[in-house]
Amino acid sequence: MPPHIGAYALMSMESDVSHRYFEDFTVGQTFGSGRIRVEPERIKSFAAEFDPQPFHLDDSAASRSIFGGLAASGWHTAALTIRLLVDSGIDPAGGIIGAGFDELRWPRPVRPGDELHLESMVLEARPSRSRPDQGWLKMRTTTLNQKEEPVQILVANLVVPRREAQS
Amino acid sequence: MPPHIGAYALMSMESDVSHRYFEDFTVGQTFGSGRIRVEPERIKSFAAEFDPQPFHLDDSAASRSIFGGLAASGWHTAALTIRLLVDSGIDPAGGIIGAGFDELRWPRPVRPGDELHLESMVLEARPSRSRPDQGWLKMRTTTLNQKEEPVQILVANLVVPRREAQS
Repeated sequence: MPPHIGAYALMSMESDVSHRYFEDFTVGQTFGSGRIRVEPERIKSFAAEFDPQPFHLDDSAASRSIFGGLAASGWHTAALTIRLLVDSGIDPAGGIIGAGFDELRWPRPVRPGDELHLESMVLEARPSRSRPDQGWLKMRTTTLNQKEEPVQILVANLVVPRREAQS
Repeated sequence: MPPHIGAYALMSMESDVSHRYFEDFTVGQTFGSGRIRVEPERIKSFAAEFDPQPFHLDDSAASRSIFGGLAASGWHTAALTIRLLVDSGIDPAGGIIGAGFDELRWPRPVRPGDELHLESMVLEARPSRSRPDQGWLKMRTTTLNQKEEPVQILVANLVVPRREAQS
């Protein structure tokens, strides 16, 4: 587990004060994101390093696979999603820190040249019982392609510092 | 969802016949893996591309953060884990295809220079009701560092083709 949650306070005091604290989030609140293009060559180079399976590496083998054509590794899609999240307006003080996930799935393949963006929603928000300086957010982030089709569903539990802890 | 699971059969007929089919897995079966070192510079370059937060990018900022020192992005750990899985002896016919995850968490940080390996166990195995040519495996994969401390727990549901479908 994180060694010392109290470090949050120090970090946020030193940084830009525009970050969001637990009190700034409400259930039902939504966030969008920028867009990111999935480069065909990056699909293959990511796969070569981390997920070297034929359907992520080779167009011809991919066309004969379960995916019916070259598809990004799901872990590549997940990594692109965290990039979009970090750059989004969610911006929790202390950073985006996932303490666990309730759901992660890839309902359809990500294809070369797809352009991805996010729709995030706060599903739950509750103060921590054991740590008065922090709260928990359950947030669903759907990664969509340029046709607005979901390619990844992620439900994450985030640790977010409380503003009171700063005073 | 995957467009045509039937493609499995074609793919595996064309490939090395030593792959494992659903019938080759049993509940309680375990698998190890090779080892992979987490290079300090790769922690930072992965983060720069996918998870640009101070505790993954900069030693000094990381020492003041919740992690108390530079830590790999959890998504980097996840990507290294899939690499070890792909190279392991699990080797399902048709590839390692996660249809969803029951659990993904990072109980402690991955540090520069850590050496990771896996312990995987089959928790459940059941034939598909709707697709006689495939089955489902629920597999827990624990990623451990060189001190045998768990750094990631992943419980995945894998789609695996049945051998009967090949005859």
